[in-house]
Amino acid sequence: MGWNTNLRWRLPVICLLLQVVLVVLFGVFVRYDPDADAHWIEERLSKNMSSDLDNEFYFRYPSFQDVHVMIFVGFGFLMTFLQRYGFSAVGFNFLLAAFGIQWALLMQGWLNSFEGNYVLVGVENLINADFCVGSVCVAFGAVLGKVSPVQLLIMTLFQVTLFAVNEYILLELLEVKDAGGSMTIHTFGAYFGLTVTRILYRPNLYQSKERQSSVYHSDLFAMIGTLFLWMFWPSFNSAVSNHGDAQHRAVINTYCSLAACVLTSVALSSALQKKGKLDMVHIQNATLAGGVAVGTAAEMMLMPYGALIVGFICGIISTLGFVYLTPFLESHLGIQDTCGIHNLHGIPGIIGGIVGAVTAACANTEMYGQKGLAHAFDPESFKASWTASLQGKFQAAGLFVSLAMALVGGFIVGFILKLPFWGQAADENCFEDAVYWEMPKEQNITHHSEDPTLKPSEP
Amino acid sequence: MGWNTNLRWRLPVICLLLQVVLVVLFGVFVRYDPDADAHWIEERLSKNMSSDLDNEFYFRYPSFQDVHVMIFVGFGFLMTFLQRYGFSAVGFNFLLAAFGIQWALLMQGWLNSFEGNYVLVGVENLINADFCVGSVCVAFGAVLGKVSPVQLLIMTLFQVTLFAVNEYILLELLEVKDAGGSMTIHTFGAYFGLTVTRILYRPNLYQSKERQSSVYHSDLFAMIGTLFLWMFWPSFNSAVSNHGDAQHRAVINTYCSLAACVLTSVALSSALQKKGKLDMVHIQNATLAGGVAVGTAAEMMLMPYGALIVGFICGIISTLGFVYLTPFLESHLGIQDTCGIHNLHGIPGIIGGIVGAVTAACANTEMYGQKGLAHAFDPESFKASWTASLQGKFQAAGLFVSLAMALVGGFIVGFILKLPFWGQAADENCFEDAVYWEMPKEQNITHHSEDPTLKPSEP
Amino acid sequence: MGWNTNLRWRLPVICLLLQVVLVVLFGVFVRYDPDADAHWIEERLSKNMSSDLDNEFYFRYPSFQDVHVMIFVGFGFLMTFLQRYGFSAVGFNFLLAAFGIQWALLMQGWLNSFEGNYVLVGVENLINADFCVGSVCVAFGAVLGKVSPVQLLIMTLFQVTLFAVNEYILLELLEVKDAGGSMTIHTFGAYFGLTVTRILYRPNLYQSKERQSSVYHSDLFAMIGTLFLWMFWPSFNSAVSNHGDAQHRAVINTYCSLAACVLTSVALSSALQKKGKLDMVHIQNATLAGGVAVGTAAEMMLMPYGALIVGFICGIISTLGFVYLTPFLESHLGIQDTCGIHNLHGIPGIIGGIVGAVTAACANTEMYGQKGLAHAFDPESFKASWTASLQGKFQAAGLFVSLAMALVGGFIVGFILKLPFWGQAADENCFEDAVYWEMPKEQNITHHSEDPTLKPSEP
Repeated sequence: MGWNTNLRWRLPVICLLLQVVLVVLFGVFVRYDPDADAHWIEERLSKNMSSDLDNEFYFRYPSFQDVHVMIFVGFGFLMTFLQRYGFSAVGFNFLLAAFGIQWALLMQGWLNSFEGNYVLVGVENLINADFCVGSVCVAFGAVLGKVSPVQLLIMTLFQVTLFAVNEYILLELLEVKDAGGSMTIHTFGAYFGLTVTRILYRPNLYQSKERQSSVYHSDLFAMIGTLFLWMFWPSFNSAVSNHGDAQHRAVINTYCSLAACVLTSVALSSALQKKGKLDMVHIQNATLAGGVAVGTAAEMMLMPYGALIVGFICGIISTLGFVYLTPFLESHLGIQDTCGIHNLHGIPGIIGGIVGAVTAACANTEMYGQKGLAHAFDPESFKASWTASLQGKFQAAGLFVSLAMALVGGFIVGFILKLPFWGQAADENCFEDAVYWEMPKEQNITHHSEDPTLKPSEP
Repeated sequence: MGWNTNLRWRLPVICLLLQVVLVVLFGVFVRYDPDADAHWIEERLSKNMSSDLDNEFYFRYPSFQDVHVMIFVGFGFLMTFLQRYGFSAVGFNFLLAAFGIQWALLMQGWLNSFEGNYVLVGVENLINADFCVGSVCVAFGAVLGKVSPVQLLIMTLFQVTLFAVNEYILLELLEVKDAGGSMTIHTFGAYFGLTVTRILYRPNLYQSKERQSSVYHSDLFAMIGTLFLWMFWPSFNSAVSNHGDAQHRAVINTYCSLAACVLTSVALSSALQKKGKLDMVHIQNATLAGGVAVGTAAEMMLMPYGALIVGFICGIISTLGFVYLTPFLESHLGIQDTCGIHNLHGIPGIIGGIVGAVTAACANTEMYGQKGLAHAFDPESFKASWTASLQGKFQAAGLFVSLAMALVGGFIVGFILKLPFWGQAADENCFEDAVYWEMPKEQNITHHSEDPTLKPSEP
Repeated sequence: MGWNTNLRWRLPVICLLLQVVLVVLFGVFVRYDPDADAHWIEERLSKNMSSDLDNEFYFRYPSFQDVHVMIFVGFGFLMTFLQRYGFSAVGFNFLLAAFGIQWALLMQGWLNSFEGNYVLVGVENLINADFCVGSVCVAFGAVLGKVSPVQLLIMTLFQVTLFAVNEYILLELLEVKDAGGSMTIHTFGAYFGLTVTRILYRPNLYQSKERQSSVYHSDLFAMIGTLFLWMFWPSFNSAVSNHGDAQHRAVINTYCSLAACVLTSVALSSALQKKGKLDMVHIQNATLAGGVAVGTAAEMMLMPYGALIVGFICGIISTLGFVYLTPFLESHLGIQDTCGIHNLHGIPGIIGGIVGAVTAACANTEMYGQKGLAHAFDPESFKASWTASLQGKFQAAGLFVSLAMALVGGFIVGFILKLPFWGQAADENCFEDAVYWEMPKEQNITHHSEDPTLKPSEP
């Protein structure tokens, strides 16, 4: 009663409605960036460019594809660890991301690249849209198994909107640097998702407890997600950095931080279990915290050892979070965080914001060179009065704004999602694909070792 | 009787024979493209090039690798959805593609890049060879589970040949634009495969009906294929486009079309099932139709909203096809289309050809600029008389040629494959890996939760 | 007794200790390469560079990411074929590689890019670190299932050190060309690993025989590894080649060799089994031998048909090795080679070294051009006296040095790993994840086809 999960009309109607609106809005607002417009060849000749390669496409496209893999395969498969929720993990992530990137192109375009009544879309917009959806994928991890696809689309609609506003405040108003999104993507996404899952608190969730664990092969599927996230994180943190040294440096720092994070995650995972056995949950998640935590500072002169230290600390804190904090949040604060995003995105995101603020505050001309410093932080509005420590303060302010937006936004959106007509499952049917999917009949997967032509299975 | 699936000599002999012939033909005909030849450095100095980056390699290589992943992991894993046919899906796809790319390098080289008695091979040839094999992978989807690897190699041999001829007619004679291959790859591949499977009609296929469905984890493996196809399709449609804006634009259009397609596929999948549950078959396949259908027009000034509309329509039509058309084709026309390629490649391919023709016919200098228009369509033979509407007519003609080639070619090749000595399986042994593979003994995969050092499994 | 696999303190202590040492050493020694340093913009202006693209980053980064995928997903999943060792295969590979790349950055940096008291790290160093770890992943294949993670970290520590020394001797002292690492990575890694596994010989390994085979889905997971290795091998062999034609040519040669290798592997696999059935072990492994065997010569003017011939031969030899040599090595020489690395990396690596030596010895100005020849082999120390045949001799010498280093190094490291306090498993507990991992409770994965809202699982 009240738990009508029948989506026959709700899901189709909302999907079609959203897509029709998107088509109309794209028709009115979206055009190609000059680098993607057929007039480019004339522009190129007029600017006397030496090579076709000076198209922004060639600076960003390989990174874009890596980010794309992280959003769809990385996040999608990371969440397949639940024994009976693989279809929903990978399928709903696919659905919300496909909707989210379109809506993000519009929202981010209106706020950041609106020129002459049009949003001009190029490869950098595609990356930023993927980034924005990344924060929704983070939040999805907190509510995984407990919400319907209709609720997810509604959540995506609002979260993308709030993300774009928050990003505008940080990047345009506060002139904060956050290329890898420690603040805009991870901190915002995590605390938004945690607030939503708190509002949607299910007191009787223990009824589906037995499905909240993994099975052997579902853990291996999840490792596909983990590894693609881990491997491509250097592309994530460098994708929208300045050309040249900044992209290059962001890759090196992220590579270093992630490597260190693996060792300390493994160390803590083993140390915290009796008999020293490793826990797949930590290997799947905590090893990634180092990528989150250098999101802001990766493009800065953090130095390779600085990146190692960040990864070192985050592997430890993230694993500790899984062992001690997640159970505490659930039992004492009513925060049911399915994937433990607080440990992978929440705390490491805040650490990333702080590391970024400190690294920015320490910037000087000796380290960056005169032109390099101006190039790295290119302050527009407060040019004359710009100092590194001022930048650091604005960075810190950006972190607080992100947290505030996440908490307030999550609170409101949580209550919207609580409305009783979105088709969410009953407590005893959470973490169960069969609620939303036609399930294949389970057959005993016994294979003949003998030649079936000799013993046909049906005589 | 007549169903001798023993491949002991047939498969080795044909593999070795084909490979020996390929070695000889490569020895006689294939050399490096100037950009891949050690003389390049002299050429570069003589042309006074400013940078090593003006090697074609740097324009195409990232896209090539994405296409490569689509052919081998994308198509290979997409077809692992069957419960007992995963080895064959991914293994035979591997085999036919590895053979096909070599044969395609030769066939396409002879027809399109034959210079001074040599086929000069560079990265663009590698991409085109992968494209050509893509059409074989499409056709493989129709006959999946019903043919032997020997038949697949024979089919590849002929289909690659016909593909190259068809491509030559379209691109060289009709001067059609088809960068993403809606016509040459998808329409041709699909109707070729459907014709072949019609000729190979098996009236008693119901005998292996119980193996024609999926199991839980096989559906997750298939999603790996789906997602890599979906994510890298922008690279597919832009891989051989003109440098700069055309590649950039093709990526944006494909990204948009695919995103829209996901939402309408999900909408229809839910609307067409009682209780509104989603069907994995639709999510695995129909979500990709948007990529097929912008194959021709992606590099043109289709506009982002144009791409969204194409994706919108194809998600709907493709899902409808899976629900209504595939069963009809099987029961009334004897077309047993295992993977439903008609819905994913057939109809969307035709739509793509039409969209391309219309978009080309609407091209004008306002939209492209004077130089941009000439650059985009670079008509060589009919330079003076070229008009956009003429281009549109040639595009339409290209679509019909592709269809005709596919039907006639599939008819002939189907009868060749019907010859009784290729080792195909009996009706009751279709969709069964054990016919062609040494199968692992199935053990009960129970894992000890306890420490095995205390309770060793064998005391 | 003596088989205490409890890692509670050993694994955490060694992980944390190694990581702390790495942080300190990075702090003292590692700085950014000029192309990744914020001063780059000043350098660029002073050098009057025309474009941001002349940063080394844009030449190497896409290849780097492909190599990265090969190390972590490729090798990691390739080894998941064992039925109960998937967690360890992918997890320990993750751990050792994350440690190894950091240690390799230092070791290779000290020996090869040490400038003014600092190791200057850029994207090429990241690739080389991945390469170095690749040789450890190869060796891991030999000892898979029989060593503890602590032993693996110790092995990685020593093997990376020896790799860097061997690489220094080959590339700097002998001025050998080995861009794809047939000698430095594959030959060295394989014979090192085989020697280690010989020293660690377990006479009673038959006690865990039943876990040394695969199950249906573990073989599919392994195919993910195989395919990513196969697809990205062209990037592997070209990643550190000279800009332009050399990278381009290395891709073409590797693509050709790998394609040919698939057909001959399939042919032999079928021919050597009664009834002609295919064996997954051969498809997963022997198909890759062609990539190993063109590692040295790929960037040279090997010619496409030359690459086909190499692949042709290696597919045959590698498959023969799996069928005849691996059992012989185990029963007669006590070499228990879990993954058959001798067939995939050992013999093909030696063939690759020989092919490279012959191809180098045949180089001439007609084939390369005057400038091209100097550019391809750029001999520094013995400039005047350089001849192609001399280069060939040095190449051959490099192969012998690699073999000697591997055998001697493996012998010593094997005895170090034999020390009784590293936590290795007893013979009857080999190939068993439960020794080192918290295992998920195995539930019967039956899914309701009915609507669970009607029949809740817990009434």
